Amino acid sequence: MTWPDTRILDLFGIALPILQAPMANSTGVEVAIEVAKAGGLGALPCAVLAPKEIEAGLATFRTHTKAPLNCNFFCHQETPDDQERDRAWLLHLAPYFAELHEEPPSLPLPRGHAPFGEEECAVVEALRPEVVSFHFGLPAARLLARVKEAGCKVISTATSLREAVFLAEHGVDAIIAQGAEAGGHRGMFLETEVATQTGTFALVRSIRARLDLPVIAAGGIADGRAIAGAFALGASAVQVGTAYLLCPEAWTHPAHRAALADPDRETAITNVLTGRPARGIVNRFMREQGFVNAGVSAFPRGRPAIAPLRAKAESQGSMDFSPLWSGQGPAPVADRSAGDLTRKLADEALARIGCR
Amino acid sequence: MTWPDTRILDLFGIALPILQAPMANSTGVEVAIEVAKAGGLGALPCAVLAPKEIEAGLATFRTHTKAPLNCNFFCHQETPDDQERDRAWLLHLAPYFAELHEEPPSLPLPRGHAPFGEEECAVVEALRPEVVSFHFGLPAARLLARVKEAGCKVISTATSLREAVFLAEHGVDAIIAQGAEAGGHRGMFLETEVATQTGTFALVRSIRARLDLPVIAAGGIADGRAIAGAFALGASAVQVGTAYLLCPEAWTHPAHRAALADPDRETAITNVLTGRPARGIVNRFMREQGFVNAGVSAFPRGRPAIAPLRAKAESQGSMDFSPLWSGQGPAPVADRSAGDLTRKLADEALARIGCR
Repeated sequence: MTWPDTRILDLFGIALPILQAPMANSTGVEVAIEVAKAGGLGALPCAVLAPKEIEAGLATFRTHTKAPLNCNFFCHQETPDDQERDRAWLLHLAPYFAELHEEPPSLPLPRGHAPFGEEECAVVEALRPEVVSFHFGLPAARLLARVKEAGCKVISTATSLREAVFLAEHGVDAIIAQGAEAGGHRGMFLETEVATQTGTFALVRSIRARLDLPVIAAGGIADGRAIAGAFALGASAVQVGTAYLLCPEAWTHPAHRAALADPDRETAITNVLTGRPARGIVNRFMREQGFVNAGVSAFPRGRPAIAPLRAKAESQGSMDFSPLWSGQGPAPVADRSAGDLTRKLADEALARIGCR
Repeated sequence: MTWPDTRILDLFGIALPILQAPMANSTGVEVAIEVAKAGGLGALPCAVLAPKEIEAGLATFRTHTKAPLNCNFFCHQETPDDQERDRAWLLHLAPYFAELHEEPPSLPLPRGHAPFGEEECAVVEALRPEVVSFHFGLPAARLLARVKEAGCKVISTATSLREAVFLAEHGVDAIIAQGAEAGGHRGMFLETEVATQTGTFALVRSIRARLDLPVIAAGGIADGRAIAGAFALGASAVQVGTAYLLCPEAWTHPAHRAALADPDRETAITNVLTGRPARGIVNRFMREQGFVNAGVSAFPRGRPAIAPLRAKAESQGSMDFSPLWSGQGPAPVADRSAGDLTRKLADEALARIGCR
């Protein structure tokens, strides 16, 4: 049994058309190594790593395997400090701080990691990962040109046909079609409205009906049947996120693991946890302040704004203020290594593809 | 080439696993006849028809074909008149009436057609359609029992795993898995929150991972590849709606047809057009008053509340207040008869299913 479409396999030099989603703060080089050794494309979430940490991660990866690696970066527009807005948001949240006997964080809120820029580009040029992926659009043209000149294949996320067309026009090698089912941050960069986001089924069809570039389907894909479905729709590969969160190598909090294992888990796209729309299991804070709140601090400062609440609640065994990122779909199977999961996904998919 | 799963074919006695979605106010017996003659399951949207009109429709159908027919009914909870709420909603909309030089409708607003009840059940018992489908849940147990005793197969819509389990426990023969991509009214009956609605990809997988009943996938399915994808996910059939709106036999308004043909059309789930969540192409009224507004008149009175605005605007060539129901996905191809569309969908799907 072979894959009906090998464009992504050929483009990246991998054996299985399965990309592990880069999940900042949830996975590190360990998961990437396991996935790579199994034949998929592992990912290093570089958006939250300093340049030296990226170098160290890549070096560790390369002591374990010669397989390709995907280095992922964010390209969000950095917003100028807006202390009025942050102050208003913290004031609005005062009852929570009082309830949990915590002080709100002092202003200014930490700026968080910068989007892909000169420093990160220099690291890419030095280390030359086989694949570089971007979230929230693309970097400036001159930086993108340098990444391509370094020999890296470039991919980015589209949440709409319009965004896919933009990416194609700006020279990506493949498009990640992130349907509304996907967990974690939506890669929206032209789109601003959560309400018009498109499901994976419709998004993959819309993009394939317009563009010839290879499409990597993402969102709600956690088993072999889903992968077979994605190929039937016209995708050349899939990106899997939520399922890897239950692997032992991932850093997923035990309470988050338990929540993921609930087949009736309810998720929603919210901006109140970080400042940008992201899908997670519905918790108290999302329900009371979201799901979409115009007053939240600008990304990524929404996260430090509630950090004291999250820390206190977690210390008391509550995930009321913690991001429980999750896509939609059946509960993923727990406790398989990332390598075993990758192999199993591939085997199940091949058994379904071409099956009468 | 044969279909990999024939459970729905066997259950309904049809040749093609393609259900035409019942689209009240948009399609009538003409579309049902075309679909049935092509081998799919045509539908008569009975929820907006009086008993005599249902009889006439069925009689017309049976002069053209012996194929099975799906009679569709609504099972929404009828809400008591709430003139305070309706008055407040109309007052809120006063600027629109002023702008369009129209009088608001007088109170009480028309109640609209009743949900499936004694009269409709008697018609079903007399006419014995092969399939009866329900939207917004199921009727009372005693009515449902009578429908089944009349020999009709019963199907209903689930928008979540929880709703699917309910339907299974209450004796449906198959489940319509209506993903968030679907156009028109969401079949929600246990769910109330639009924000937690699930994409087709994830919903079909979730339901198939839990239940054995045949699943009819709906939402974003408009071409053969999408049908092949649905089967790969585990569906036994598909329900297609939006694509049939562009058939000449459908009653779709020319401006609605033009909007559907736009590949970049943007849709959202809104309750402001009728009182219940439904997906349509974003228009002025949805954008300004929605997408979800807690103050709208209770379904189905949202529709007559803005009827004068809609009529005036349409007479002036504007669809600002008109429902432009539409699912997500590529623009459907226009001007094929419903029969040709059905055959083409089936041919394309079979060519993709089992394709390496």
